[in-house]
Amino acid sequence: MSNVEKHLRLTHAGAMRILEAAVAKAVQMGKPQCIAVVDEGGNLLAFTRMDGGKILSIESAIRKAATAASSRGPTGGIQGDLEFRLAHATSGRLVNLKGGLPIIVDGITIGGIGCGSQTGEEDLEVTKAGLAAIEGAQTFG
Amino acid sequence: MSNVEKHLRLTHAGAMRILEAAVAKAVQMGKPQCIAVVDEGGNLLAFTRMDGGKILSIESAIRKAATAASSRGPTGGIQGDLEFRLAHATSGRLVNLKGGLPIIVDGITIGGIGCGSQTGEEDLEVTKAGLAAIEGAQTFG
Amino acid sequence: MSNVEKHLRLTHAGAMRILEAAVAKAVQMGKPQCIAVVDEGGNLLAFTRMDGGKILSIESAIRKAATAASSRGPTGGIQGDLEFRLAHATSGRLVNLKGGLPIIVDGITIGGIGCGSQTGEEDLEVTKAGLAAIEGAQTFG
Amino acid sequence: MSNVEKHLRLTHAGAMRILEAAVAKAVQMGKPQCIAVVDEGGNLLAFTRMDGGKILSIESAIRKAATAASSRGPTGGIQGDLEFRLAHATSGRLVNLKGGLPIIVDGITIGGIGCGSQTGEEDLEVTKAGLAAIEGAQTFG
Repeated sequence: MSNVEKHLRLTHAGAMRILEAAVAKAVQMGKPQCIAVVDEGGNLLAFTRMDGGKILSIESAIRKAATAASSRGPTGGIQGDLEFRLAHATSGRLVNLKGGLPIIVDGITIGGIGCGSQTGEEDLEVTKAGLAAIEGAQTFG
Repeated sequence: MSNVEKHLRLTHAGAMRILEAAVAKAVQMGKPQCIAVVDEGGNLLAFTRMDGGKILSIESAIRKAATAASSRGPTGGIQGDLEFRLAHATSGRLVNLKGGLPIIVDGITIGGIGCGSQTGEEDLEVTKAGLAAIEGAQTFG
Repeated sequence: MSNVEKHLRLTHAGAMRILEAAVAKAVQMGKPQCIAVVDEGGNLLAFTRMDGGKILSIESAIRKAATAASSRGPTGGIQGDLEFRLAHATSGRLVNLKGGLPIIVDGITIGGIGCGSQTGEEDLEVTKAGLAAIEGAQTFG
Repeated sequence: MSNVEKHLRLTHAGAMRILEAAVAKAVQMGKPQCIAVVDEGGNLLAFTRMDGGKILSIESAIRKAATAASSRGPTGGIQGDLEFRLAHATSGRLVNLKGGLPIIVDGITIGGIGCGSQTGEEDLEVTKAGLAAIEGAQTFG
């Protein structure tokens, strides 16, 4: 095995296209959002709070994005007490709220997207619209 | 879309009038309170702890005010596990205790009021009395 | 004194224009940045990390923006030990690094911009380019 | 020695009078402030942020008040490296900024007052005006 291998990375341009697509969807829905994009390491790449997005959703949108990138799957599917164990174990960084999706291209997780301010279903709809801006990214139900 | 738009702001004088009105109500009820007023961004504008108000209600009253300002509605209406998910996702800043109300004037949220130390119903009654000090503010049930 | 008074607010569209203008400048300089825009209350409105922007500058760029909005002036001018006293007193939220500017329109502070990843002078140059996207905003030296 | 002894306590009415006196002084100076009053235990009793008071001074004003109550003397007099050792040891809760004074009556410390948003000297002047509202309280230079 080699020490170093090829990887994929979400660019700044890609992150901004995600924001644009997500904002367009939220505008169409008439439901303002906080929208966050993080890289594979959970570090913030891009963020926007629309007029009417909620102050307390700034942090939760970022955490949804990081949770999705870390778990490599949609947020919100953890069952039972495990959810609260994980929340405590991560000082709340791992969230089990709907609205976070990983960005997976060619089987490689390159980041995550998180939206928040509305219902979980509405947040997720906007996250999906953002994800669709990345050609070839894995889609989720 | 313009870069800057007209807005409204709760003044210091307004915040102090809210405290006075809320204190007067709490005195009448014989139930001392912690009373907090925050601006639209959730930052503290005014606070008072009456003789007999609880130490551990200082922070919860402030958080009720910030939660109401952020969600633009009364605190305490979140159902089921969502409450705990949101609490964790915001490191406890979002609270689902009764006693927080937003201050909405001409359809614009300009802040929030939170009270705590007694039962949720009693806290809310004092919060309502505080809100009534702001002429033209939206009322709640 | 009235309870509520007229105010101005930085829109989402304005915040995104600031990012675009700042990114364009940083691209021209060949110096990637983290760029943050906050509202008057120091809450995040928009953020972007360019390819090559530094992970540890994510938070410092946001704090520069919030410091400039709070102090209503450029960051980096505090002299002597006062800097460290203020940093400790705010748990590091107040930073004295160059690269933060307030957004002041018609004499009203409506937010702040902070950049970080390069030298203080280079960060400030990009912040100024971002500020120039807001017509009528006060300029700084 | 008895197990329990007589003590003095700052009332809610006293705390509000301190705010009023401090605000009056700040208005006269034309220098808006954040003003905090804490009890002997460092727990918040009353707070107000005047129009133009700084967001990042909310917390530092509260910490000045608590530092003065804890040390039973004016803030800002710690010399040399001790300052930073104490700041670190208290996670920044102990501040060495001017503008905090203890409230001492009959030799008993019953609380502290802290002001912040302007220069240390200006903050202290407003704190002194607040302290003067408490008849019989020890004065400081």
